[in-house]
Amino acid sequence: MSDRQGVAILGSTGSIGTTALKVLARHRDRFRVAALTAFSNADLLKEQAAAFKPTFVGLVEQNGQRTADSGQRTADSGQRTSDIGHRTSDIGDRTVIGRDCLIEAATRPDVDIVLNAVVGAAGLDATLAALEAGKRVALANKETLVMAGHLVRSAIERGGGEIVPVDSEHSAILQCIAGRSNDEVRRVVLTASGGPFRDWTRERLERATVEEALRHPTWRMGKKITVDSATLANKALEVIEAHYLFDLDFTRIDIVVHPQSVVHSFVEFVDGSVLAQMGVPSMELPVLYALTHPRRIPDTASVTFDPVALSPLTFERVRHDDFPALQLGIEAGRAGGAAPAVFNAANEQAVEIFLRGKMTFGEIPRAIAAALHTLDDLPAHSRDALQAADAAARAFVREKFGC
Amino acid sequence: MSDRQGVAILGSTGSIGTTALKVLARHRDRFRVAALTAFSNADLLKEQAAAFKPTFVGLVEQNGQRTADSGQRTADSGQRTSDIGHRTSDIGDRTVIGRDCLIEAATRPDVDIVLNAVVGAAGLDATLAALEAGKRVALANKETLVMAGHLVRSAIERGGGEIVPVDSEHSAILQCIAGRSNDEVRRVVLTASGGPFRDWTRERLERATVEEALRHPTWRMGKKITVDSATLANKALEVIEAHYLFDLDFTRIDIVVHPQSVVHSFVEFVDGSVLAQMGVPSMELPVLYALTHPRRIPDTASVTFDPVALSPLTFERVRHDDFPALQLGIEAGRAGGAAPAVFNAANEQAVEIFLRGKMTFGEIPRAIAAALHTLDDLPAHSRDALQAADAAARAFVREKFGC
Repeated sequence: MSDRQGVAILGSTGSIGTTALKVLARHRDRFRVAALTAFSNADLLKEQAAAFKPTFVGLVEQNGQRTADSGQRTADSGQRTSDIGHRTSDIGDRTVIGRDCLIEAATRPDVDIVLNAVVGAAGLDATLAALEAGKRVALANKETLVMAGHLVRSAIERGGGEIVPVDSEHSAILQCIAGRSNDEVRRVVLTASGGPFRDWTRERLERATVEEALRHPTWRMGKKITVDSATLANKALEVIEAHYLFDLDFTRIDIVVHPQSVVHSFVEFVDGSVLAQMGVPSMELPVLYALTHPRRIPDTASVTFDPVALSPLTFERVRHDDFPALQLGIEAGRAGGAAPAVFNAANEQAVEIFLRGKMTFGEIPRAIAAALHTLDDLPAHSRDALQAADAAARAFVREKFGC
Repeated sequence: MSDRQGVAILGSTGSIGTTALKVLARHRDRFRVAALTAFSNADLLKEQAAAFKPTFVGLVEQNGQRTADSGQRTADSGQRTSDIGHRTSDIGDRTVIGRDCLIEAATRPDVDIVLNAVVGAAGLDATLAALEAGKRVALANKETLVMAGHLVRSAIERGGGEIVPVDSEHSAILQCIAGRSNDEVRRVVLTASGGPFRDWTRERLERATVEEALRHPTWRMGKKITVDSATLANKALEVIEAHYLFDLDFTRIDIVVHPQSVVHSFVEFVDGSVLAQMGVPSMELPVLYALTHPRRIPDTASVTFDPVALSPLTFERVRHDDFPALQLGIEAGRAGGAAPAVFNAANEQAVEIFLRGKMTFGEIPRAIAAALHTLDDLPAHSRDALQAADAAARAFVREKFGC
């Protein structure tokens, strides 16, 4: 057992989490599932725990109700792990209930790799804790880097952990750079599927329904990220993520629309050479690669690449004017400070309201723009400051745009 | 001067040679042209020598006439360097005349990298000599590896030299593998433009003219290699080359037709991930990369990659039945022994006869097939044996198919 790496999956019942368990089921010889946490899907979590026998199981919300400390995030929540660790529930004798189960799972001694697939800003604390504990964080929670890239960097310096991206685009870039010096990279080009509304007119976009926004052409993902793909806010988050992951100035990060989602991203080197990582759209590879990087291990379930079946591959310019969330996010990234946290939180809140049917699709970027405009000079020096910026942006959007 | 690497260019007046000088003119801070050799273009060689001031200049044939030893290659020609080294000619005081100028250029102490861009089997001796002298060989002469891959391997073991490919496809594969273990490679997929006859019917192919065969859709290259691209014999040579360069079994080398020549090849890894190297069709990058590998240096002349301008990228299956030279070459590669040398020599001879208008396009593969069928059990244990196989295949094709 001891030579297998222990993996904690935060968000195990979500899209990335269930994909990761499929991958891990094929690679039990190299990895063991050490910890599982879920947000509220107790039934599926119980099934997963029975199948993988982790030493730790955590649930953020029991019976759809958050525990006392887990509602609106508070700055001190990270200090209460010791209380929480002893609570158990009826879904399993060893299930720890409450939001702090994330940090506990992320820092356990038998965990080597933390797959952080928590949706949204809630994933930040666990990422910081895991990095400070020297773990590898396989990061599917891009909001972590968007909100607090500089805090993540100092957590890495303090604890010796490392981040390996799980996003297909960033995994592609990592695979193309493959240990070469950043000096050899001229720029990266993130591909964007363009989402379900790629060729919609601006007028039609304005009134797009929830159902239409969730009909993603190439990727099957969670609801929030699927809406982000439709607004292209997701691509803005990825640009900011790439900035921190690969230490690239924003001028060295471009985007191209690629409807087939076969090329997961390009890296252009200083000599003009371009490498691309490709494959059928599936998160299984980025998850596996995040576990094995920089090595690769045989995965017999992977499909043989057939460029003829995938032909033609097409590329289009981004329609920045019609998808303003993208540029808003990139500008927030360039501005730095609390702006990326405000962008991220305003977007999350707006999408939540949109998904409840209480905001039009066209209002999402307007809500983000208004939040960035109003909350343009918040402090960003600490995690608490960023949490406050996050809360302020959510409150602003709820008040101005919610019902 | 001493910290710059010395480069010898064998075949400096050809397509790859002139491209290399364009590249080297931009990178005089890192490389100096130490030696230049040409086949017969004395005027251009003289110009190049004046511009780059190499310490050695060699010409294989003066006034279109080969010197006594340089006609049909003989097994002992490698031993005559000392005589030849002192001859000079009217094209320049320090110009060495005769075929052995190749070996002298390739082994000089002030040469670190030998760019072997000699056309055809004549490049073998210089490659072996350079490798035995511990040089890096930037290999544009794929026939070297096709004829005598095992001899090249032992020359590397003896002398400590290394081969870095200049072919765009193999450069692409090298860039994608980038130092990873061969165990992590599931297979490589070489792209083929398909040549000028990609969509021609078999009947029309049969009677294709020299002019038509030289009208390559994407790459501007020498005549012989352009015809090889039309028959797909070139792709067979590349498969065999890839077999030796990357130590891959033939079952791990596939081909796909890609008319735009933007993806230069794919590498599929054991985890199912695929990397591709891409760029506008130009030999400048593969030449530069062969000099700088495994590092990259900035090349401001390189074009910024624009996938939108290059869209769409399409991929098609190879029409093996209509381009039989490809399968003949792959089978010769699998058979091993002298078969690859026979394939290569029969093809070279057939193409020469075709270019003189004395053979139809459709006869090229039939001439190769007949040579392979007749000369199917020749010895291959030594360079001399392979030269004999080469000579036998040429003689066979001349006698049976020439005029």
